[in-house]
Amino acid sequence: YTIAALPGDGIGPEIMESGLTLLETIGKKFQHEFNVTVYPFGGAGIDETGDPIPPQTIKGCSEADAILLAAIGGPKWENAEKTPEDGLLQLRKTLGLFSNIRPIAVSDSIAHLSPLKTERVKGTDFIVVRELTGGLYFGQPKHWNDEEATDTLFYKKSEIDRIVRQAFDIAMTRSKKLTSVDKANVLASSKLWRKTVNEIATEYPEVTVDHLYVDAASMKIIQNPTAFDVIVTENMFGDILSDEASVITGSLGMLPSGSHAVSGPSLYEPIHGSAPDIAGKNIANPMSMILSVAMMLRQSFQLHEEADALEKAAAEVMDAGFLTADLGGTTTTTAFTEQVKAILE
Amino acid sequence: YTIAALPGDGIGPEIMESGLTLLETIGKKFQHEFNVTVYPFGGAGIDETGDPIPPQTIKGCSEADAILLAAIGGPKWENAEKTPEDGLLQLRKTLGLFSNIRPIAVSDSIAHLSPLKTERVKGTDFIVVRELTGGLYFGQPKHWNDEEATDTLFYKKSEIDRIVRQAFDIAMTRSKKLTSVDKANVLASSKLWRKTVNEIATEYPEVTVDHLYVDAASMKIIQNPTAFDVIVTENMFGDILSDEASVITGSLGMLPSGSHAVSGPSLYEPIHGSAPDIAGKNIANPMSMILSVAMMLRQSFQLHEEADALEKAAAEVMDAGFLTADLGGTTTTTAFTEQVKAILE
Ligand SMILES: CC(C)[C@H](C(=O)O)[C@@H](O)C(=O)O
Ligand SMILES: CC(C)[C@H](C(=O)O)[C@@H](O)C(=O)O
Repeated sequence: YTIAALPGDGIGPEIMESGLTLLETIGKKFQHEFNVTVYPFGGAGIDETGDPIPPQTIKGCSEADAILLAAIGGPKWENAEKTPEDGLLQLRKTLGLFSNIRPIAVSDSIAHLSPLKTERVKGTDFIVVRELTGGLYFGQPKHWNDEEATDTLFYKKSEIDRIVRQAFDIAMTRSKKLTSVDKANVLASSKLWRKTVNEIATEYPEVTVDHLYVDAASMKIIQNPTAFDVIVTENMFGDILSDEASVITGSLGMLPSGSHAVSGPSLYEPIHGSAPDIAGKNIANPMSMILSVAMMLRQSFQLHEEADALEKAAAEVMDAGFLTADLGGTTTTTAFTEQVKAILE
Repeated sequence: YTIAALPGDGIGPEIMESGLTLLETIGKKFQHEFNVTVYPFGGAGIDETGDPIPPQTIKGCSEADAILLAAIGGPKWENAEKTPEDGLLQLRKTLGLFSNIRPIAVSDSIAHLSPLKTERVKGTDFIVVRELTGGLYFGQPKHWNDEEATDTLFYKKSEIDRIVRQAFDIAMTRSKKLTSVDKANVLASSKLWRKTVNEIATEYPEVTVDHLYVDAASMKIIQNPTAFDVIVTENMFGDILSDEASVITGSLGMLPSGSHAVSGPSLYEPIHGSAPDIAGKNIANPMSMILSVAMMLRQSFQLHEEADALEKAAAEVMDAGFLTADLGGTTTTTAFTEQVKAILE
């Protein structure tokens, strides 16, 4: 198994270290060889090579079986000619990572951490399927000057088709309930989106489909999060809604995500950012990275037993009260990792 | 004072009735003459004339001193050639209503109704200033066919300039704290937006300005709503974030909003929709409409005493325990209105 690791910026290197340590432990325990190569990316790429996504990083990622990304960005590179974020967008586009899967789950034991009332959020368990290589992020023309600015929200039907099918397939493995989010009362692209969803729905008669406008969806995520099973939406709406959804769990530091292409490597990363304010302090919660590693084991390598073992060990450590600062505890990043490692060994 | 009233659809006519009844009471009490003309609009416009915004409605609105709108839309007209929503967008554009002001306030007495934990939401008091006639809603090209779809996010600097100035002016009357929301790490239009905000900021040295990405803003509204004072953002982001913000108050039925042009009449309306499911049952909460009337009295007519009297009377009725179904009570729309009327008289 060849893995490209992109530690990136801020707390990225610390949590990547945690993830890779435990990946190695899993490898020893279950006798797999994981060939991990670390590449410069994001701000670290700019510092090292002047480019947030240097050629060797693109090459290494393209040739890998899977990619682990920790986090990128920070004030230092905000005004760079090519920013860390530009590098991330280029990576997504180059590898064709059109499908971003973000599970949002609130286990009973952490429901009290939610900013929402506990009764309201308990039992929340849904997946946001976000289109990742189209829409406003990439449409042309896209330019600005001192007088005016233009971005373009463009979708080909085929781009909508493939992400919507992915969402239906996921819904089939769950409660068979799909919510498509658009703004079909205003946007032309949403009209095509909605029509495409309705067409594909006829091929999945078992799946109950409903449509929500994006403004209504932003309300329902707060009012009634347990009502969702699978949400599918375009790139920009997915960015906003998945971040909104992530905070209702009360534990941003624990959410992994996966991005997939039609073929080629998938990329796994925490949902949160690089948190420059707590970088280098050994206090970041490595759970999101650990769970990203587990997601990779399961989805890219079909190593289900291994993924289960890793998730179970990490959950045990948390249940035993070893919590990082974001969860009100005092456990350090490295101490947490050592605990998980000890259980695995 | 000439007022154009657009009752619209769903619960619209019921709450408009409430608002107009109390406007008349205020008129009698304070000896003003309010000349109210009701015009067909939205679904009601389609049913009556085939057009959600018939010529006489445009004419009546343009010539009025202020416009009261209740709510529009419903499943009946979803597939109309020109929908109720199209009518609303045309009205906004025709009258140049570029500035949409949505106050989000959580009084201590209703904080327990919020889906958020009470401690977290108590004291929330901010204003969303949403650009209303530009961006993705109106940019050209905007079209779709069976193969592809395009929307255009276009802004002239002058359009950004005028809404941002409005937000700064509002911030000056409050805590002098302005949060500008954009997606400057991805969108060209957001780069121009951010630059413009920073330029205008130099003219308002007393105002503290910060910038948030829209995804981060969607998180912070839940995590730390009391941190905001004035939020300014473009049309689509404003649609999503103001609706998200409205539900943290726990009382969607109580939020008014105002939309303003460079010159000409302003429009006042509840933040919520037409709620077709409860239409005609005499159970809708008329507070949002009543507060929209008060907002009109204050902002369009400078009738501060009158606005205060109306708001105070309505608050008294609520404090006395007369609550509509959405707030857990059994008071009907008309009974609530009669109570407020009695106090005013
Ligand atoms: C960093 C940024 C470009 C990115 C996005 O908007 O896609 C991030 O917010 C995310 O959600 O992965
Ligand atoms: C009805 C719709 C077109 C409208 C909008 O998106 O502006 C509504 O959601 C609003 O916020 O006033």
